[in-house]
Amino acid sequence: MADKLARAEKAIETNPFDLEAWGQILREAQIRKIDDARVYFERLVAQFPTSGRYWKMYIEQEMRARNYDKVEKLFQRCLIKVLNIELWKLYVNYVKETKSALPNYREKIAQCYDFTLDKVGMDIQSYSIWNDYIHFLRNVEAVGSYAENQRITAVRKVYQRGVITPMLNIEQLWKDYIAYELAINPMIAEKMQQERSRDYMNARRVAKELEACTRGLNKAMPSTPPSNHPEQIKQVELWKKYLAWEKSNPLRTEDQSLLTKRTMFAFEQCLLCLGHHPHVWYEAALFLQISTKTLSDKGDVTAAKSLAEEVSNIYERSINGPMSHNSLLYFAYADYEEGRIKYDKAHQIYTKYLEQHDIDPTLGYIQYMRFARRAEGIKSARLVFKRSRQDPRCSSHVFVAAALMEYYCTKDKNIAFKIFDLGLKRFKHQPDYLLAYVEFLTQLNEDNNTRVLFERILSSGSLSPENSLEIWNRFLEFESSIGDLSSVVKVEKRRNAVLDKLKELEGKETALLIDRYRFGTLFPCSTADLRALGYYEVAELSSSQSAK
Amino acid sequence: MADKLARAEKAIETNPFDLEAWGQILREAQIRKIDDARVYFERLVAQFPTSGRYWKMYIEQEMRARNYDKVEKLFQRCLIKVLNIELWKLYVNYVKETKSALPNYREKIAQCYDFTLDKVGMDIQSYSIWNDYIHFLRNVEAVGSYAENQRITAVRKVYQRGVITPMLNIEQLWKDYIAYELAINPMIAEKMQQERSRDYMNARRVAKELEACTRGLNKAMPSTPPSNHPEQIKQVELWKKYLAWEKSNPLRTEDQSLLTKRTMFAFEQCLLCLGHHPHVWYEAALFLQISTKTLSDKGDVTAAKSLAEEVSNIYERSINGPMSHNSLLYFAYADYEEGRIKYDKAHQIYTKYLEQHDIDPTLGYIQYMRFARRAEGIKSARLVFKRSRQDPRCSSHVFVAAALMEYYCTKDKNIAFKIFDLGLKRFKHQPDYLLAYVEFLTQLNEDNNTRVLFERILSSGSLSPENSLEIWNRFLEFESSIGDLSSVVKVEKRRNAVLDKLKELEGKETALLIDRYRFGTLFPCSTADLRALGYYEVAELSSSQSAK
Repeated sequence: MADKLARAEKAIETNPFDLEAWGQILREAQIRKIDDARVYFERLVAQFPTSGRYWKMYIEQEMRARNYDKVEKLFQRCLIKVLNIELWKLYVNYVKETKSALPNYREKIAQCYDFTLDKVGMDIQSYSIWNDYIHFLRNVEAVGSYAENQRITAVRKVYQRGVITPMLNIEQLWKDYIAYELAINPMIAEKMQQERSRDYMNARRVAKELEACTRGLNKAMPSTPPSNHPEQIKQVELWKKYLAWEKSNPLRTEDQSLLTKRTMFAFEQCLLCLGHHPHVWYEAALFLQISTKTLSDKGDVTAAKSLAEEVSNIYERSINGPMSHNSLLYFAYADYEEGRIKYDKAHQIYTKYLEQHDIDPTLGYIQYMRFARRAEGIKSARLVFKRSRQDPRCSSHVFVAAALMEYYCTKDKNIAFKIFDLGLKRFKHQPDYLLAYVEFLTQLNEDNNTRVLFERILSSGSLSPENSLEIWNRFLEFESSIGDLSSVVKVEKRRNAVLDKLKELEGKETALLIDRYRFGTLFPCSTADLRALGYYEVAELSSSQSAK
Repeated sequence: MADKLARAEKAIETNPFDLEAWGQILREAQIRKIDDARVYFERLVAQFPTSGRYWKMYIEQEMRARNYDKVEKLFQRCLIKVLNIELWKLYVNYVKETKSALPNYREKIAQCYDFTLDKVGMDIQSYSIWNDYIHFLRNVEAVGSYAENQRITAVRKVYQRGVITPMLNIEQLWKDYIAYELAINPMIAEKMQQERSRDYMNARRVAKELEACTRGLNKAMPSTPPSNHPEQIKQVELWKKYLAWEKSNPLRTEDQSLLTKRTMFAFEQCLLCLGHHPHVWYEAALFLQISTKTLSDKGDVTAAKSLAEEVSNIYERSINGPMSHNSLLYFAYADYEEGRIKYDKAHQIYTKYLEQHDIDPTLGYIQYMRFARRAEGIKSARLVFKRSRQDPRCSSHVFVAAALMEYYCTKDKNIAFKIFDLGLKRFKHQPDYLLAYVEFLTQLNEDNNTRVLFERILSSGSLSPENSLEIWNRFLEFESSIGDLSSVVKVEKRRNAVLDKLKELEGKETALLIDRYRFGTLFPCSTADLRALGYYEVAELSSSQSAK
């Protein structure tokens, strides 16, 4: 056992999301006394904070030991964030079990049910909560007709909300409801049935669709980063289907806020399992953004305004949660705030991203620079570029982006040259950067400057043979397009001398020839030929060299 | 049986190189009488003209039927082209069998052996031919000491050639030779042994290396186009190893012509099996070219000149054989002739390539144009471009190439504009072409012209929504780089309206966002994220649309 545990710990060290290893830890925790197990459970919920299943197991163990104060605190930590139906059912049971001795137990329990139905009453598995609540309400002692009437109103209200909510067993709820009304007053019962049956049948239809649509979804799946795992890929597809279905407004409701609430419930469910998948966050934000627009088009400015804040909230949650290192979400968030002319907010978002320690901030600076130019003009962009130059983590791309921005926006090619030259001092070892500079000169038709740059790069000795290869190829292409045959041959000979030094390319002579004859997507060979030639490997070799 | 045959015929119709199906045909041919089988054999050798095994089976069947005139003609058709040792052994046996009744049979047979050893005497399996020849010579009737001496000289000559030729069983040949000399004259024997043993031991070492180096090579493998078949990939690797070894001069000879002969023998052997692989042809030509240079550096101008012709011959054979549709070989061939200042020849080669009916000649015209410019100047290149415009098979790339050539070589951007505009009439449906035009304008910083072009393209209605997507993306990128936020948002809205029409992109919103934030090779997500987003599929979709 200790052995298995040690192996599991080791596996988690390599891959913090190794579910099998965590399963081992979990089994270990479950056979221990809670005082010994707690440390394991804490690690588990720290790694998988959205897993209802793990929270539930943790809480159950505390409950078995009757540590109710601990249970209370655990529920406080997870409940609002984890809309998992099984966890919430545990919560309801816990409240019923522990609060029934209190003098105000009725209010406490009713509050608990209301709260629960508000949060997870839309879940397909919520029938038992609805039913228990009604059962509870019907059994409330009521003395006198006023109290009895109040009870009927309360029960009726819950029934009437329930029978229009798509869920499993909705038919039973409807039957019980009709029976309930009949027992009270057959006349009113008929009227109620007539009034409600259309919405009920609509909900029943949607419940069937929902059942079909979520079949196979594993809501207990702990959230792990995207992988090639077939089960994960399958789950992603199933969630996608479910979300698309909710977005399609299956209830055919006119009530935009109901549609938004149902769809966001689906997104929240999905985020419990796929919170490490950036697209879910972005699509949730996008959905809210579109809803905002629909509401504001309908003239409901207040609702639209509050929904617009919800968009920010979703983005904020993503970058403060599992997306803290995902630049895509920061950029989309910043763009969103830029679109609302909240430039300060956008500045804050870019800054927050760039201040993280364990990232490559280059793309962040580039996007920040572009934002600054759009929102505040070239001078503001230059300040961002200046800041990026002081950040030693930055790669050469930011120089390229800044130079091209100057050329395309201020139309001043001399500033662009200066920036490229400035970068040359720092990145003379990097073929990628050198190629970008060469490309820029070539496009401007600065033949002599281009040749001078080629010679400067290639004779500086700052490039290894591997790294110089792509530059030589580009030089050859340059001379092939504009030089005469003798300059082509001269460059080719010098390039071949470099090739001779490269063992990896031995026997790949033909593969190297391909680049001389290709034009964009036109190749002088079939794909099968190219593969057989080892062309793709060579292409990979030169690009991996240049990416270094 | 008839069923199996029909299935095989069908399989061959789909894939003319289906070896299993051809095996079925072969079995059918072998159980028939030769008069019925001939048609099958003819198809077989037409499809696999370099397969020694198939030729041998065909000839054997004719031999069994004693159709010696037919056999003779078959040998004439294949022998020189197919240096397969088994086929040549059959040939020797055939000559021995059929010519021994002739009055001049000794000369005939000796000629046959000499011819055979000249062609395949370097084969690792050639021992039996050497041995048989010597056996034959030793048994030749010789009357008188003059004739006897002549016989000894003849036998000795063959022995002495054989014992320095790396082959299996070379040790036996050496032992026999020493015994032979001893039997004649012990003194001379010792002298001969001393003189020859170093070369013999060198050849013996090389024979061992050769054996190791060719282990696993299947010389009976029929030649088929490059595929992913693991056995073919393995064979390609083995051939590569063998060729590299021969090129490394394992005999450590100073004799450049011996090294060339041995290496070319290896290339010829390889081409029998891998004649559909362009790199083998190119590498053979390249090897000869390098040998030519070595010879001419050594001052052997005559030999160098004749080897230079051999380079042309190899290229000529390739494009008249299995490489008839492989532009790479034509281009390399033309470059070779251009390098020797044989411009007429280069013109002929390009023309021959372009005159084929079932090709896309675009890249051919582009390379031809570049050659014309290098060799004869821009006016000659323009003539090629003119010719390409009259060829309806040509794709838009040739316009792009011509326009850029004008811009980069004549530095006249107005000619380039005119060419791009000319192409616009013909290729207004092709996103690829439109993007190239846009790219050109952008690089020249012609913002207004670029915007006008975007609008012209996108409002013309000539593009389907699928095809317009990439142009919209480019437009968005353009505005993101140089426009203000409102123009960015405006273009994005218009682009999104197009996206709404594209079912394939449903649920791929995030994947589309990637391109907005990427910069060259910098992506706003990890590779795992990109895969999970379906980014690669979307990228494929837009590029496959634009390639249409």
